[in-house]
Amino acid sequence: MARENLTIRLAERPTDEIVPGTTFTAKREAAPSPDDLKDGEILVEVLYLSLDPSLRGQLNDRRSYVPPVQIGAVMNGASASRVLASKSKLVQPGEYVYAATGWQQYKILKAGTFEPASAYPGLQQPQDMLSAMGLTGVTAWYGVTQIGEPKAGETFVVSGAAGATGSVAGQIAKLKGARVVGIAGSDEKCKWLVDDLGFDAAVNYKAPDWRQKLKEATPNFIDVYYDNVGGEILDAALARAKEHARFVICGVISQYNSSSPAGIKNIHQVVTMRIKMQGFIIFDAQAQYAQARKELGTWLAEGKIKKNETIIKGGLEKAEQGLVDLFRGVNQGKLLVEVKNPSETPSKL
Amino acid sequence: MARENLTIRLAERPTDEIVPGTTFTAKREAAPSPDDLKDGEILVEVLYLSLDPSLRGQLNDRRSYVPPVQIGAVMNGASASRVLASKSKLVQPGEYVYAATGWQQYKILKAGTFEPASAYPGLQQPQDMLSAMGLTGVTAWYGVTQIGEPKAGETFVVSGAAGATGSVAGQIAKLKGARVVGIAGSDEKCKWLVDDLGFDAAVNYKAPDWRQKLKEATPNFIDVYYDNVGGEILDAALARAKEHARFVICGVISQYNSSSPAGIKNIHQVVTMRIKMQGFIIFDAQAQYAQARKELGTWLAEGKIKKNETIIKGGLEKAEQGLVDLFRGVNQGKLLVEVKNPSETPSKL
Repeated sequence: MARENLTIRLAERPTDEIVPGTTFTAKREAAPSPDDLKDGEILVEVLYLSLDPSLRGQLNDRRSYVPPVQIGAVMNGASASRVLASKSKLVQPGEYVYAATGWQQYKILKAGTFEPASAYPGLQQPQDMLSAMGLTGVTAWYGVTQIGEPKAGETFVVSGAAGATGSVAGQIAKLKGARVVGIAGSDEKCKWLVDDLGFDAAVNYKAPDWRQKLKEATPNFIDVYYDNVGGEILDAALARAKEHARFVICGVISQYNSSSPAGIKNIHQVVTMRIKMQGFIIFDAQAQYAQARKELGTWLAEGKIKKNETIIKGGLEKAEQGLVDLFRGVNQGKLLVEVKNPSETPSKL
Repeated sequence: MARENLTIRLAERPTDEIVPGTTFTAKREAAPSPDDLKDGEILVEVLYLSLDPSLRGQLNDRRSYVPPVQIGAVMNGASASRVLASKSKLVQPGEYVYAATGWQQYKILKAGTFEPASAYPGLQQPQDMLSAMGLTGVTAWYGVTQIGEPKAGETFVVSGAAGATGSVAGQIAKLKGARVVGIAGSDEKCKWLVDDLGFDAAVNYKAPDWRQKLKEATPNFIDVYYDNVGGEILDAALARAKEHARFVICGVISQYNSSSPAGIKNIHQVVTMRIKMQGFIIFDAQAQYAQARKELGTWLAEGKIKKNETIIKGGLEKAEQGLVDLFRGVNQGKLLVEVKNPSETPSKL
C-alpha cells in the first residue's frame, strides 16, 4: 500500500472563532508517488507550515484577494518543504522549497508554483523562508520602507508588535532612525520588544491604563502607524496621529474572528490630521520580493534585525489549535507548525 | 455716534448640535472707522458670508488644523466683501475682496489677509469667490484631480453630492470621463444631480433601500469615493470598494455634531481591497489655488460645470440658524448668508 498523506480540510465555515474539531476535519489518503511526476514537477514533504492571520479570512465565503477555501478542500497555507523527487531543472531531491502546499504532508508541485531556497540569499534554516525572509518579513519591509517611510526622529508605532510582521516592522523602523513604540498583549512581550529587539517603548494593551501609556510613549504624537490589529487600537492611534501621518494598514487581526466588527470612531482624524491611510497586500508587490529578501538577508547576517519564531511541535494535527492560538497571541515572532523536523530522514514514498 | 457693527460671537461650546440662542450671542459695537486704517490696510463691509461644515469643528476645544474659536470671540467665517476705504495699493473702494472676516458686518483687514477679486479669473459675481471658484470649488478640484484621479470609465461616487463641494466634485469627475454616482438626502436633490448636473445616477440615502440602490448604481464597484459625510455612508462605500480604490476623505459632516460618532465597521476593506484613503485640508494646497481657479473659471465660462448657490436672505442674524440648517441639508450647492446685497449703496462709516 502507498504511504499515507494526512490532509486537513475545511469542514464548516466558522461564523466567528474557529471551532476545533468542527471547522476542520482530518483525512488520510494515498500519498502522491514519484511515478506521477510530469516534466517540471516536483514531489515535496512539508517541514514547516506557516500560520498567518490572513488564513482566517479565507474561511469566509466573500469577495477578497484570495478565493475562499472551498468546503471539503485542503486548507490553504504556505510551507517550507523538502524535495523528495524532482523532474524540474530548478531543484534536486534534498533541497528546500517555499510553496503554498496547504495543510498536508506531501504534495506534487507544478512548475512555477514553488520557489527554490536559492531565491532567499543568506538563508540559514529552511523556516527562514516563512519568517524573517518569508512573506511576513517581506510584508514588514514593504509596509515600512515603501508606504510608511519613517524618517529619522519621527515616531513610529506598530500594533501586533510581537507578531511575525510587527516585530520585523519595528526593527526596520528603528534601523531607519525612528523612535519606535510597540503595542502588544502582555508585559512579557513588551519587555522582549524593548530589551531584546531595541524598541524605545512598548505598551501592553491589556493593561487598564494603556491609552494613557500610549499617550506618554508618543509625546510628539504619531508620524507613522503600522497597523496589524484594527479595532480600538487603531482608534487610539488615530486619536494620537500627527498632521500628515501615514497609516500603514497591514491587517486587522482583532476583527477577523468577528461577524460584527468593532466600529472605528475617530475616522474624522483622517481629515483633521490629513492622514494617508494605505491598505496593502504583499502579493501585489512581487516585483520587489527579491530586493526585500536581499535587504532582510543582509540585516539578518549583520545582526541588525533578529528573527523570532514560535514553533509548535507535534505535526500537522496541531495546526488547527495553532491557528486558534495565533488569534490569542501565543506567539512571539512567527508562528510555525513543525510538520517534520528537517533533521529527520526524508520520507520514502 | 459711530455707525454700529453687528458681531455674532461664540457664547457657549455646543456638545452636539448648535443650540440657536445659546451657542452664539449678538453684540453691537462701534464700527471701525476709515480713520483707523494703517498703511496697507483696508476697511470692508461683508456682502456674503460662507457657511461651511468645517465651522462646526472650530467650536470644539480640541487639537485641529484651525485653532478653536474662543468664547466671546467673533465667530470664524469667510466672506465676499466690498472695500469701503483703502490704504492698500492692491484694491480701491468699491472693489470686492475675499477674506476671513468672521461673522460681522465691518472689519479692518491687514495687508496679506485679503484677496482681491482679481485673483479669481473669470469672476462673474462677488459670491463666486465663495462658491464654485471659492474654497469649496477649489477643494472639489483638488480632491478629484490631485487625490482621487478618476480615469475614463471608472466609477466615481460622491457623498454630500448636492452640497457645495460634492456638486462640483461630481461635475469634475464627469468631465474626466468617469461614471458618476451621487449620494444625497432627498429625491429632489437626486433628480437635480441627474437632470441638471449630468450625474449618471443618484441615490437618496434616506430611502430605506438605499444600500441596494447604491449596489445597483455601482455594478463594477467603486474606483474613487469622494467622502463628505463619513458614518454609515462611508461604511457602505467601503463595502462596495474595488481593488486599489482611492478614498478621498474631504469631510465627515454626519459626525461633526456628535460627541459619540458612529463607528466605521468595514475598515478591513482597506486591507482586502488595498484602498488608499487620503484625508486633506485645502489650506495645505495654497500653491495650487491659482491653477484650480483658472481651470474652474474656464469650465464655468464654457458651461462645463454649473455653479449652484442657496442664499439665505435677512442679514447676519440668520447665520446661526443657517449653520444649523446646513447640517440638515437645506442647501443645494453652496450655502451663503446675504449680509448685504451688492446692489445696495455702500455704507458710509
